[in-house]
Amino acid sequence: MSTTETINFTRGVPANESFPTDEIAAAAQRALQKQAVAMLQYGPAAGLAAFREWLAQWQQVPVERVLTGNGSLEIVEFLCIALLKRGDFVLTESPSYDRALTLFRRNGAEIEGVPLQADGPDIEALEKILARRVPRLFYVIPDFQNPSGATCSGAKRRRLVELADKYDFLLLEDAPYRLLRYRGQDEATLYSLAPHRVLHMSSFTKLIAPGVRTGFMLGDPELLAKIGKVAEDTYISPGYFAHGVTAEWCAAGKLGPQIEKLKKLYAPRLDATLAALDKHMPDAVATRPDGGFFLSVTLPDGTSTTALRAAATRHNLNLADGLAFFPNGGGERFLRLPFCALTPAQIDEGVRRLSIAVREVKH
Amino acid sequence: MSTTETINFTRGVPANESFPTDEIAAAAQRALQKQAVAMLQYGPAAGLAAFREWLAQWQQVPVERVLTGNGSLEIVEFLCIALLKRGDFVLTESPSYDRALTLFRRNGAEIEGVPLQADGPDIEALEKILARRVPRLFYVIPDFQNPSGATCSGAKRRRLVELADKYDFLLLEDAPYRLLRYRGQDEATLYSLAPHRVLHMSSFTKLIAPGVRTGFMLGDPELLAKIGKVAEDTYISPGYFAHGVTAEWCAAGKLGPQIEKLKKLYAPRLDATLAALDKHMPDAVATRPDGGFFLSVTLPDGTSTTALRAAATRHNLNLADGLAFFPNGGGERFLRLPFCALTPAQIDEGVRRLSIAVREVKH
Repeated sequence: MSTTETINFTRGVPANESFPTDEIAAAAQRALQKQAVAMLQYGPAAGLAAFREWLAQWQQVPVERVLTGNGSLEIVEFLCIALLKRGDFVLTESPSYDRALTLFRRNGAEIEGVPLQADGPDIEALEKILARRVPRLFYVIPDFQNPSGATCSGAKRRRLVELADKYDFLLLEDAPYRLLRYRGQDEATLYSLAPHRVLHMSSFTKLIAPGVRTGFMLGDPELLAKIGKVAEDTYISPGYFAHGVTAEWCAAGKLGPQIEKLKKLYAPRLDATLAALDKHMPDAVATRPDGGFFLSVTLPDGTSTTALRAAATRHNLNLADGLAFFPNGGGERFLRLPFCALTPAQIDEGVRRLSIAVREVKH
Repeated sequence: MSTTETINFTRGVPANESFPTDEIAAAAQRALQKQAVAMLQYGPAAGLAAFREWLAQWQQVPVERVLTGNGSLEIVEFLCIALLKRGDFVLTESPSYDRALTLFRRNGAEIEGVPLQADGPDIEALEKILARRVPRLFYVIPDFQNPSGATCSGAKRRRLVELADKYDFLLLEDAPYRLLRYRGQDEATLYSLAPHRVLHMSSFTKLIAPGVRTGFMLGDPELLAKIGKVAEDTYISPGYFAHGVTAEWCAAGKLGPQIEKLKKLYAPRLDATLAALDKHMPDAVATRPDGGFFLSVTLPDGTSTTALRAAATRHNLNLADGLAFFPNGGGERFLRLPFCALTPAQIDEGVRRLSIAVREVKH
């Protein structure tokens, strides 16, 4: 590890070495042999038929409960246009995924953050908000949350669904990391608990590669039709060519082995991050996720993320803006550490530099 | 030609038999060999570097004047979010591309249509509008216009640029059909006349296939940066995988021969449409375009497009809604005929059915 090489604890990018390039090349050939015209022509905005059908079978839902898109983030945008009016009230976890916050805000939503605890949203705080004002939807990332790494407990998932039913709001469940569990047992998805009440999103970005720009949403067919109409008005059809290749790769049984490969690659990187924190920053208060792309650290009292970022840059270490994850302020001491795209050696060196930067800015 | 086969004179779709499937399959292999990581990882929203560079060289502009996207329509959406406020004034031709009108409207623009003549926008009408109110932009399709088939004369192009300079508004030039000229000489693009004043869009949808979802915009780097930021906030990166394949196909010199192939396929279809109109509807008033995907017919007095669509359906003929192309009403007698995805035999039979339907609804 050179000390001059820049290390990025910034965005949640997958590792370059994780991409199944040869399999994608082979899937592209087979897919074009089987259904070139379907992949190359225009078609319904809900998605390439073969891909929707594969997703429906995989997720065990009727095909009309599946909407595909160019990554899942953009489906949030279409949902905002289709279902929200300016001034509508939206809940998110606090912290939450900064890019989703940007889209809710851009579409004029009034966002309130529900404090996130180690086992999911603070239900007491949520109930207080609900007693005051009912949101149109609550955006939650129950599994290995971005940015915190927290996973919502089974009890809290059931409570969220009860409250959504009682107060009549939608749950928007974003689950791109769910299949990357390195230890422990799955909790039920919110969607499986309340398919009438939940729009569930996921993506192949973290499972195959970002470049295929392939995400999907499961949910009520009437809601999906509204969201799909916005998609059609925006881009006519999603990326059928890339989605046809993805579908062929999935249909060839590549997803299961790929997930196992990713777990073998990423679990040691999570462990390396925790070990490096123990070694270089024994006083750090870190989350200890069981999967996903991120853990988060609460910086020592008197350390601000803004000052820390500037100090870290001087050590060739780039950090994400902690404040951007908090919809209503806070987060001055919040640091997200994405570990998947770094080797254990880079992680150790990165945390070492982080510990130096923290000492420099602490007062 | 069976008389029960449905014939669609609806959307401007390319012919299935035009797709260069084998070349795309080969390009996918080569592209993944050369730059798999770049095509599969996240990257700048402006586009995959290799693709932007190829486009810049092809269009002879600096690379910072190129923005790519998942088709050109969606770039209009990003432009609206980046550059327009609700209530901003936008001019379009009347008729104009219905999907672009939908996006301007969705983003709260006040749209006024400038009557389109056989040689481009009615300049006198435009000047009257400008004396009253200056738009933020004027959306024009100068070559083989959608939906009319009209091409803007050189004199009117120069006048448009002069007026844009004089009154200080942007010209948004949409040119997806420009390279499909079956006869006659090219006119200069608006962009070439005034690169400081024009945002030029085009797409590979009509040249390769819709499924690659590949469009681009040329223009002022500062404006493109604003539009690109909206794109990033919406989908992080465009479809790098498909764009990498498109770039490789282009770099292999396939575009020129493909365009020649398309002209050989489509020019006889335009001729067949004009011949069928002469044969079955000798009184029809039709545009006689020199290229592109569409011609348009002004229906006889007393014939409404709405009644005609219903009558045509009973003869297994689907027609587009003529009214949708007109931003401020009108168009009751307007009919767009997209001819590229139909064989000459289908075109003849389609126009025959159309003539019957016209007779049925004429009063």
